[in-house]
Amino acid sequence: MSEKKRRRADPGPSGPAAVTKKSRARGSSHAHDLRKQLTPDSDILASLRRMYDEAQSSAASSKTLNLSDLNLSAACREVSDRDASSVKHTIERAILDVARSILAGRGFSFDVPSRSASNQLYVPELDRIVLRDKSSSRPFANLSTVRKSTITARVLSLVYAVLLRDIHVTKRDLFYTDVKLFQDQSQSDAVLDDVSCMLGCTRSSLHVVASEKGVVVGRLVFTDDGDRIDCTKMGIGGKAIPPNIDRVGNLESDALFILLVEKDAAFMRLAEDRFYNRFPCIIVTAKGQPDVATRLFLRRMKTELKLPVLALVDSDPYGLKILSVYMCGSKNMSYDSSNLTTPDIKWLGVRPSDLDKYQIPEQCRLAMTDQDVKAGKDLLEEEFVKRNEGWVKELESMVRTRQKAEIQALSSFGFQYLTEVYLPLKLQQKDWL
Amino acid sequence: MSEKKRRRADPGPSGPAAVTKKSRARGSSHAHDLRKQLTPDSDILASLRRMYDEAQSSAASSKTLNLSDLNLSAACREVSDRDASSVKHTIERAILDVARSILAGRGFSFDVPSRSASNQLYVPELDRIVLRDKSSSRPFANLSTVRKSTITARVLSLVYAVLLRDIHVTKRDLFYTDVKLFQDQSQSDAVLDDVSCMLGCTRSSLHVVASEKGVVVGRLVFTDDGDRIDCTKMGIGGKAIPPNIDRVGNLESDALFILLVEKDAAFMRLAEDRFYNRFPCIIVTAKGQPDVATRLFLRRMKTELKLPVLALVDSDPYGLKILSVYMCGSKNMSYDSSNLTTPDIKWLGVRPSDLDKYQIPEQCRLAMTDQDVKAGKDLLEEEFVKRNEGWVKELESMVRTRQKAEIQALSSFGFQYLTEVYLPLKLQQKDWL
Repeated sequence: MSEKKRRRADPGPSGPAAVTKKSRARGSSHAHDLRKQLTPDSDILASLRRMYDEAQSSAASSKTLNLSDLNLSAACREVSDRDASSVKHTIERAILDVARSILAGRGFSFDVPSRSASNQLYVPELDRIVLRDKSSSRPFANLSTVRKSTITARVLSLVYAVLLRDIHVTKRDLFYTDVKLFQDQSQSDAVLDDVSCMLGCTRSSLHVVASEKGVVVGRLVFTDDGDRIDCTKMGIGGKAIPPNIDRVGNLESDALFILLVEKDAAFMRLAEDRFYNRFPCIIVTAKGQPDVATRLFLRRMKTELKLPVLALVDSDPYGLKILSVYMCGSKNMSYDSSNLTTPDIKWLGVRPSDLDKYQIPEQCRLAMTDQDVKAGKDLLEEEFVKRNEGWVKELESMVRTRQKAEIQALSSFGFQYLTEVYLPLKLQQKDWL
Repeated sequence: MSEKKRRRADPGPSGPAAVTKKSRARGSSHAHDLRKQLTPDSDILASLRRMYDEAQSSAASSKTLNLSDLNLSAACREVSDRDASSVKHTIERAILDVARSILAGRGFSFDVPSRSASNQLYVPELDRIVLRDKSSSRPFANLSTVRKSTITARVLSLVYAVLLRDIHVTKRDLFYTDVKLFQDQSQSDAVLDDVSCMLGCTRSSLHVVASEKGVVVGRLVFTDDGDRIDCTKMGIGGKAIPPNIDRVGNLESDALFILLVEKDAAFMRLAEDRFYNRFPCIIVTAKGQPDVATRLFLRRMKTELKLPVLALVDSDPYGLKILSVYMCGSKNMSYDSSNLTTPDIKWLGVRPSDLDKYQIPEQCRLAMTDQDVKAGKDLLEEEFVKRNEGWVKELESMVRTRQKAEIQALSSFGFQYLTEVYLPLKLQQKDWL
């Protein structure tokens, strides 16, 4: 849809008339000059190797900060990935607690963490949104909560059945097992998130998965449900990222970095040109807005392989918004932010400053709408942007010039300019923020 | 979006009150009865093997009908898959023709086939929409066509450059190479389709590809850009279907049929349960509305492997609409219908008659909206439905009862009811239309 919205390439304030044949020739000769700036790949690779070594050693020396490491005034709550037997055990304990409470005459009730916005907190040290510790009681013997406590019990029993069979299901499947009770999928979905918080485990640990749309290609070998996948041998289409992260294992890689790509088209260009053979990397895309499976997969790669992550997104507020979802999570999944987020993603491009640096022709730049500008200004208020001075400058310049550009705009210098000049030069100049 | 629209499971005309505990118990004991009807897998496999043999021998004896085999009163036009050198040759010839015309004093002009609705025709013998032979001239020396003929020349030269480098690009890439001329992507897209018609080759042959979202898993081995892909070893995520069909080759399979699935969730269930190991098959989904890459891939499998195709879609007009796109093509790509369509897909389920046969509980059936009913009635007027008496009956009953159901509704009998009872029984009873 956003594709459609941005379809028309407005010639921008200067208008097509301002672009003379001469300026166009200048643009492409500039592209030629940039190509000449490229040093041999061996030099670029040596510098990438240094970046890789730094990432490895800093990951080895510095432990990743956890909520428990911080002395937070407000107690916070987090969930973690747990194996099926441990989750089953926790469910059994929860039900036993309820039974004891009934026997003791205190009645049937669940204690459920609150997931509302007022209970959410951005933690700068962790650079993500987490959930505070507030929770509320959900007694069965109360008209306002009887439905919800019944649904909670039902979802607990369904999840238990799924774990017993060691299978995975979707939220939709869960809903259909008892439409009469749930009435509406939003009700079973909400309680599923409650149950996840209650049990202190991720939704993946409950074996309830979302559908995936991400693909991966490049220097990565892993197992998907026991099958060994070599991502250098996945052609141009790549390997579909599995919906159930707990069946993913044995990650191995000789990559120097992970290249996170916003768009499908850029992914295809990189895969067809086998970019990962020239610069050893893992290339991943969620084809637009990141889905849960791709976010889990990226975090898994980053944590296990300790690779730096470089991002290639459109130069517009939406591209940065996508980065923020990968880095800081989305608000409605804040209780699971530690498993879904990948901190420290570098903004490689396309950045507002690239537009002039690479002399993207005026007619390939798009005029930002008022809504775009507002989105840009809103981002300037976000903590994750404020923390990075470079990002603030870029974003300020985007809002000031009111110009945006897609990754595809680089095609104006040739279809393979992205893989042959732009990215190698970026890597050579360590041009990321 | 349709997911969202259909989110609420309306209890239907009888309402939840009508569903007593008794009827629910009856439903699940019925599910148990059906399970008992299942014969040993070896019997089902023997019958599937007979279906497979029939498909193979009928494919061997009867040549697929082509436009040229029919004595049509209106001449029709079709494009075909061609290799890069042949397309390059055709472009060279087209440009030479133009040059000769200029030298002869007849001026610069292209002869472009019309792709408008009035030039489209449904051919019952072929069971798809094709393009008639009407075409129009696009002279350069005419105010109303000068832009279009310039764009046509530019697109021809861009496509030629892409073919020379032997790479693939997206429509968006193409647009960005000359935003000043094209102004709007819809203009370069439209001319690209014109060029495809003019040259008599498919858009894939021009090496301009669409983004893919389909995945495949099961008993299929093929090469994607030279990499050998074994789809029985693609875990649960499956292999992403490549955007460029001309880099797909060497299809091998010991499957007895292709299972075409509408939804991602059902695909995941089948992949996780490794359904293809119990009943040798290839499982493919486009995750909703079929994209061009998945349609090309399905057709390729059907033609080369000569396998019967069984479809598992939601029991609603939208599910049938999806089948129609696979079978008959979409109107705006009618000039390429022979390469994009897969004739003779069998409607395995979920069919309106299944709702009672499998006693899908009332609360898992959804009430059709007025718009749904209208869509159903419109489908009854479509040629591809009218040709199949069984489909007409099913669709009439859908419209009459005003009930629809998703594949997921089968989860009400257990998460694995789909793979353990429903599909095996369907295959055993050869219950497809």
